[in-house]
Amino acid sequence: MKKSNHIQPTFKGIIPPMITPLLDADTLDIKGLEKLIDHILAGGVHGLFILGTTGESTSLSYKIRHELIEKTCAIVNNRVPVFVGITDTAAVESLKLAETAAKAKASAVVAAPPYYFNLGQAELIEYYQYLSERLPLPLFLYNMPSHTKIMIEPDTVEILSELKNIVGLKDSSANSVYFNKVLYKMKDRPDFSLLVGPEEIMAESVLLGGHGGVNGGANLFPSVYVNLYNSAISGNLEEVRKYHRQVMEISTKLYSVGSFGSSYLKGLKAALSIMEICSDYMASPLHSFRSTERELVERNLMEIRKNIK
Amino acid sequence: MKKSNHIQPTFKGIIPPMITPLLDADTLDIKGLEKLIDHILAGGVHGLFILGTTGESTSLSYKIRHELIEKTCAIVNNRVPVFVGITDTAAVESLKLAETAAKAKASAVVAAPPYYFNLGQAELIEYYQYLSERLPLPLFLYNMPSHTKIMIEPDTVEILSELKNIVGLKDSSANSVYFNKVLYKMKDRPDFSLLVGPEEIMAESVLLGGHGGVNGGANLFPSVYVNLYNSAISGNLEEVRKYHRQVMEISTKLYSVGSFGSSYLKGLKAALSIMEICSDYMASPLHSFRSTERELVERNLMEIRKNIK
Amino acid sequence: MKKSNHIQPTFKGIIPPMITPLLDADTLDIKGLEKLIDHILAGGVHGLFILGTTGESTSLSYKIRHELIEKTCAIVNNRVPVFVGITDTAAVESLKLAETAAKAKASAVVAAPPYYFNLGQAELIEYYQYLSERLPLPLFLYNMPSHTKIMIEPDTVEILSELKNIVGLKDSSANSVYFNKVLYKMKDRPDFSLLVGPEEIMAESVLLGGHGGVNGGANLFPSVYVNLYNSAISGNLEEVRKYHRQVMEISTKLYSVGSFGSSYLKGLKAALSIMEICSDYMASPLHSFRSTERELVERNLMEIRKNIK
Amino acid sequence: MKKSNHIQPTFKGIIPPMITPLLDADTLDIKGLEKLIDHILAGGVHGLFILGTTGESTSLSYKIRHELIEKTCAIVNNRVPVFVGITDTAAVESLKLAETAAKAKASAVVAAPPYYFNLGQAELIEYYQYLSERLPLPLFLYNMPSHTKIMIEPDTVEILSELKNIVGLKDSSANSVYFNKVLYKMKDRPDFSLLVGPEEIMAESVLLGGHGGVNGGANLFPSVYVNLYNSAISGNLEEVRKYHRQVMEISTKLYSVGSFGSSYLKGLKAALSIMEICSDYMASPLHSFRSTERELVERNLMEIRKNIK
Repeated sequence: MKKSNHIQPTFKGIIPPMITPLLDADTLDIKGLEKLIDHILAGGVHGLFILGTTGESTSLSYKIRHELIEKTCAIVNNRVPVFVGITDTAAVESLKLAETAAKAKASAVVAAPPYYFNLGQAELIEYYQYLSERLPLPLFLYNMPSHTKIMIEPDTVEILSELKNIVGLKDSSANSVYFNKVLYKMKDRPDFSLLVGPEEIMAESVLLGGHGGVNGGANLFPSVYVNLYNSAISGNLEEVRKYHRQVMEISTKLYSVGSFGSSYLKGLKAALSIMEICSDYMASPLHSFRSTERELVERNLMEIRKNIK
Repeated sequence: MKKSNHIQPTFKGIIPPMITPLLDADTLDIKGLEKLIDHILAGGVHGLFILGTTGESTSLSYKIRHELIEKTCAIVNNRVPVFVGITDTAAVESLKLAETAAKAKASAVVAAPPYYFNLGQAELIEYYQYLSERLPLPLFLYNMPSHTKIMIEPDTVEILSELKNIVGLKDSSANSVYFNKVLYKMKDRPDFSLLVGPEEIMAESVLLGGHGGVNGGANLFPSVYVNLYNSAISGNLEEVRKYHRQVMEISTKLYSVGSFGSSYLKGLKAALSIMEICSDYMASPLHSFRSTERELVERNLMEIRKNIK
Repeated sequence: MKKSNHIQPTFKGIIPPMITPLLDADTLDIKGLEKLIDHILAGGVHGLFILGTTGESTSLSYKIRHELIEKTCAIVNNRVPVFVGITDTAAVESLKLAETAAKAKASAVVAAPPYYFNLGQAELIEYYQYLSERLPLPLFLYNMPSHTKIMIEPDTVEILSELKNIVGLKDSSANSVYFNKVLYKMKDRPDFSLLVGPEEIMAESVLLGGHGGVNGGANLFPSVYVNLYNSAISGNLEEVRKYHRQVMEISTKLYSVGSFGSSYLKGLKAALSIMEICSDYMASPLHSFRSTERELVERNLMEIRKNIK
Repeated sequence: MKKSNHIQPTFKGIIPPMITPLLDADTLDIKGLEKLIDHILAGGVHGLFILGTTGESTSLSYKIRHELIEKTCAIVNNRVPVFVGITDTAAVESLKLAETAAKAKASAVVAAPPYYFNLGQAELIEYYQYLSERLPLPLFLYNMPSHTKIMIEPDTVEILSELKNIVGLKDSSANSVYFNKVLYKMKDRPDFSLLVGPEEIMAESVLLGGHGGVNGGANLFPSVYVNLYNSAISGNLEEVRKYHRQVMEISTKLYSVGSFGSSYLKGLKAALSIMEICSDYMASPLHSFRSTERELVERNLMEIRKNIK
C-alpha cells in the first residue's frame, strides 16, 4: 500500500512513559499524579503513555490499573493524547483495560507480547490478530524482548501493520539495526508510527526517519527531550548534539546507581521524589532505593541541574 | 537446623499440575473439570496442583482463577491436598488468590518468581519475604527459569527455606545439577519438600532423595506416574526402568508434535480431548492443535495405549 | 585525561571487514584476493580489516591466517592502513598473529574476547592487559556479544582505554544504547577510535560522534559506504538519508536470504562471486549458498544495481 | 537398526576429563603430567579424556595440544583407552589433531560443535558429516551448549549416530530431560555410548541407562567416581547414595569458591596443586586462584579428606 510522503503518522513526538506514583502497594498517590502530569505537560510533550514498563504496570493490581486510566485521562483532560498500556499475559484482562481506556477517552492502547509462555512469531501474529479485532481503540505494538523473551520480527511488524487498528510500534529493544530494518520495511507506510523507547537513541532514530520517543527521562526533564526531538526533526545537528549530551548525562548519572536490572526505574522514581514531585514508593517485586543509593541520586541530580534547568 | 532423618516432608509423591478445562476464553468447562479431577484422582495421586504453567494460569482472567480454586476444592472435597498456583507479577493479586485458596481449604500455594522485570537474587529474596509474611497457607517456591528468566539459586533456596510458611520447592528447570545441589544443601532439612516438574527426570530425582513430581502426563495416565514414584521410593530398579520407559514414550509421542515452545501443553490438552475427558480449548496467546497435529496426537495416543492402559 | 577537541583518532572512516577468498578449506584464492582488494580500495575506503568475523577468521587454519596477513599487506602495499584480526581463544596464538602482522607492516590488530569460556568483566580486563603488554602494534577492542557471549561493558572499555596500545573499539553489538554510553564515557578521549560494525547503524553513530564503520557491504559497494560516511561527517542529512537507503536496500536484499544465522556472510560471498570478483567457497562449519539461494541473491543483486553502480 | 540388548558400547565407565598441567602459557608440566596420569589411573578409571573443556584445550597453542597428545599416550601406554578432544572452530585444525591422536594410538576423538558462529542443526549435521568422513578414529559428539551456544538436538544425535565413525555422545548440558530424550531415542542402539559430563548427575544417568561419566572430580579422587559408577551399574542404591554424597561434597566445597564462570576449573587445579600432584598454572584467559581463594580451597579440601581418602 504505497502512500504519499506528505502523510504523517497521527502519533509522533515525545510521549513520556509515565511512572506510577504510589502511596503503598495498592494506593495511588493522587496528589503526586496531578503534580507529575502537570510537570510533564508543562514541558511541551506530544502525548502521555501510562501503564508501560516504566509505569510498573505488571506489578499493579487491576483495580489500580483501571483507576489510573480514569484519573489520568481526567487530569490530562484532552491537553495531549493519552496512550494506555494494556500489556498482559491474559488477553481478556487486556481487553477490559482497553474498554476502560476507551470510556475515559484515551487515544490509543499499547501492548507488548504476552511474557510468560515462549511464543513463536506465528503465535504472536495470532495473538495480535485476536486483540486487534476486539479493540475499541488504535493499537501500538510494543517490542520489549528483554522482558518478554521475544522480538516482534520486522516481517511480523509488516504483517501486523495491515491489521485493523494497528497504527504503530514502540521499540524498546535498544537494537538499532532492528529499528532501521523496520523503518526500511515500512517506508511506504508513512502513516505507521515508529517510536523508540531508549532515550539514548531517540535522536539518531529521528534523524534517520523515526517518529519520536517514549523516553523515561521526560518524566523529569520533559523539555530536554522535546528540544532534542525538535532539533532532530529540523535537522539542526549542533542542537541535537547539545541536547543529546544532556540526555546522556541524565542516563549516565541517574540510571546506573546500584547494579539492579531496574536501576533505571529506581533512579527515575528517586529523582522525582527528590524533586518533590511525587512519592518514590515502588510496588513489589521492586523496591525504591535505600538511603545510600538515594543520596547518590541526589548528588548526581544536583550536578545535572547545573547544566539543565 | 539439623533434624532427625525420620522426619518427612508433609507434601510428597505425585502431584499432577492440572490443565484448566475451558469452554472459551473466559468460561470454565465445569463438566470437563469434574471428569478430569475424578480421572486423575482415580490414579492414586498424592495431591493436585492447579493454576501452574500447565494450567495456563497466566492466560486466565482473575475471575476464572478464583472460580477454578473454589470449584476444584469443592470437587476434590479433601480426597487429596490441593496446591494452588498464585504466581503473578503483582503481589497483591497473588495474595488475593491465596486468600481464596485458604477459604476453599486448599493445602498450600505455589509461587514462581515475578516474570516481567529482570530481578536479582536479593530482590527475589525480598519478594518471597514479602509474600511469606502475608500468606494464610504454606508456600512452595517454583523454579521455572525458561519462563521467568531467573533461577532461584541454591543459596537463595536455603535462605528462603528458613522463612515462615515456606515449605518446599518445585523445580522445573530440567537442570538436574541444580536439583542435586539443592538436595545436598537441604540434606539436614528432611521436612522441606523437593519436587521436580519434568516427568522425564522424576524417577532419577526420587532415587537420589527427591520427594516427588509435579508431572503433566499424570493428567492423562496418573497411575503410570504413581507406579513410577512408588517403584523409585521402594528402590525397585527394574520397575523404575519399566515405568520410566512408559513416561518417555508419552513424552516423545505427545509433547513434541509441531514445533511450538508449548507443544507439551498443546499435546496434553489434545490428548485429553481425544480421550473425551475435557475440552482442548486454550486461552490466548496459545491455541489448541489444528487438525493435522491433532490427528498425529490421535495416532500416537493409540500406539501409547497399546502399552499403557 | 582531558584532551583538546582538535585531536582526532588516528583510525577513522570506512574500514571494510574483508571476506576471505578461498579455493578450498585450506587454500587462499590469491587471484580473487588481488581483485577484491583492488575493488575495495577503488571505492576510497580508509582502511582494510582482515580476519574478522566476516573474514571467517575462526574457521581458518593458522597457516592460512598467517599467509593472508602477508599477502594482503603486500597487495595493499601501504595504500591504506591494514587492520588484522587476532581474535582467538588461545592468547599465544593471538600474539603470533600479531607478530606476523607487525612484520608485514600492518597498522593495528583487533581482538574480540576469547569466546569459549564464560568470562566475567574482571577476567576480561586481565585478558586484554595480558595482550596489550605483549603486542607489537596498537589494539582495537572488538565487542561482539552474539558470538563471544560477553559484552565489553562501557566501564570496562574506559578502564582498558588507559592501557598501553589500546586505541579504539569496534562495536558489533547492534545495541546503540551501549554505543552511546561508550561515546559519552569516552567524550574526553577524542583520540580513542569508536567504530561500529553493523552498516545499518553506521550513519547515525557518526552523526552522534562515532568515528566510522567496519561494514561488510563495503566489500561489494565500497563507495556507497564512503559516501554515507562523508555525508554524515559533513552533516548533510539529505545525502545521509539517500545513501542510508541504499545501505538498507543492500542489507534487506542480500543478507537475509535463507534463514541462517550467517545469511549475511553467505549473501556477501555469493554476491562477490556473482560479480566475478572472487570465489564464494566458505570454510567449514559454514557453506556457501546452494543454487536456489544463489539465484535469489542474483536477482536481488540485479535490482540493487539499478540504483547503485 | 535394531540391535540385541547384549551389545554394549565399546566405551563406558569413568573417563576423567584430565586437566592440563602447565608450567607457563606455552609449556607443559611434564612431571606433573606423569604424576597426574598415574594418580588417576590408580583409581581404576576406564579411560582418560584429554583436551576437553577441563583440559583448557581452547586456551592452548596447537604446538602444546599436539605435544600433550603424544606425551599422554606415551605415559598411559595402553593401560586405558585415551580420548582426545579435537574441538575447534577450524575443521582443518581438528583433523590435524585427530591425525596426531591416531598416530599416538589414542582410542577415539571428541568434538563439540564449532563455537564461534551461531549454527543451526542442519549446519551442525553437515559439520559432523564433514569431520566423520575424514577422521582416522571413532568420534564422540560433545554437547556443551553453555560454551558453544548450540544444543545437539536429540533428533540430530539420532541422525549423526548413523554416520561413519560416530560412536557416542558426551553430554555436558546438565539438562537431564535432554539426556533422557536421547537415551530413549537411542534405545535400539545399545552400542552407542551415552556419557554425561557433570558428576552431580552421573549416578542417576547410569541408573536410568547411561553408560558412564566424564567427571572432572575424578582428577582428584578417581576411585570415588569409579565406586559410584560401579554401585549404579550393579543397582546398589545404598552405595550409590553414599558415594553420591561424597561427590556432592566435592562439588559443593571445591567448585564454587569465588564466583567465576570457571570456579569449577579453578578449584580443581588449585586442589591438585595443594595435593602436590601438579602445577595450578592456567592459560589465559583464565588464571589460577589467588591466595584467599586458594586458602579456602585448602581448608575445604581438608574437610573433604576426612570423609574421603
